Amino acid sequence: MPRLHIISASTRPSSAGRPLARWIAELAAEHDAFDTRLLDLGEIALPFMDEPEHPEAGVYRHRHTKDWSATIAAGDCFVFVMPMYNGGFSAPLKNAIDYLYQEWQNKPVGLVSYSAGKTGGAPAIEMIRPVLGRVGLRPALRTLSVPAIESYVDEEGRFAPTADLRTRAQAVLDAVADLATTPEAERVSA
Amino acid sequence: MPRLHIISASTRPSSAGRPLARWIAELAAEHDAFDTRLLDLGEIALPFMDEPEHPEAGVYRHRHTKDWSATIAAGDCFVFVMPMYNGGFSAPLKNAIDYLYQEWQNKPVGLVSYSAGKTGGAPAIEMIRPVLGRVGLRPALRTLSVPAIESYVDEEGRFAPTADLRTRAQAVLDAVADLATTPEAERVSA
Repeated sequence: MPRLHIISASTRPSSAGRPLARWIAELAAEHDAFDTRLLDLGEIALPFMDEPEHPEAGVYRHRHTKDWSATIAAGDCFVFVMPMYNGGFSAPLKNAIDYLYQEWQNKPVGLVSYSAGKTGGAPAIEMIRPVLGRVGLRPALRTLSVPAIESYVDEEGRFAPTADLRTRAQAVLDAVADLATTPEAERVSA
Repeated sequence: MPRLHIISASTRPSSAGRPLARWIAELAAEHDAFDTRLLDLGEIALPFMDEPEHPEAGVYRHRHTKDWSATIAAGDCFVFVMPMYNGGFSAPLKNAIDYLYQEWQNKPVGLVSYSAGKTGGAPAIEMIRPVLGRVGLRPALRTLSVPAIESYVDEEGRFAPTADLRTRAQAVLDAVADLATTPEAERVSA
């Protein structure tokens, strides 16, 4: 089974994205297609990219980079659970991507955004696309953007989805599973 | 005279952006329009945004946020000297912007990008525009993108510009000075 890493991309202590990421991880664990792991960029606590060499070289000086490289190399596919700040993706997500290169190549990624407002962070998904292209991540066609994120977090800090959100989140996971079980070469020649 | 803060937006130890930012600061100091200060995000060393409140509230818990707020509130206009990583702006720059809100409002900003390749980071300038709009920064019409950045850094780590680069950098500073001395209301009604 492909190893799916769900990456929670906010490092703010009060982030409403954490309950959403935990819920996506639960859905993925119920999905019979994945071996699922939840990664929290707040816990991983990478510093700002501080390697002297370009990541394409794959020559890492720092322990935190070597650990992050091993973590991402172990993933076959990903879901980014991403906040939108000021109409764009968050700094911790961009930083985590920029540290590595080869480790991302040709791997599927599902994009789940959220925001306090009406867009659900969809503009942040659009903004990250060229970056994904540069490191060779393959975004799934289906995405999910959750508006008014705080309205879905209950008093115990759990994400309380509607049936519609559940259906759409499962569609993202299905799309990632589809990409993960279809090699790139096969898709091109199909 | 308007206080101009040049913000060097790479935190990598070997950044070629630092010599470029120092050179822009020298040009700005020679320019008779500004009281110039050079800020290095590597030295300022903000952590990833960790405030519980939304920046619009202006309620800051942490000492580093209060210091950064005071620094930016003291600037009348800015030049961002920005690297491009993977086709986009750097995480430290986005993070530094996302910490604050009111402190950026209605202030002019000049955009100077650089890259190892041919684009000089121009795509990173385009990618940051919606973010600038959200915090109310007013980008100057003239921008500068420096390709093959390493070819301009000499053995002493100084930026060695061509005459053309000097002319274009001065045009950016002129455009920022023009915005800084023309209030927004006056420009709208003109």
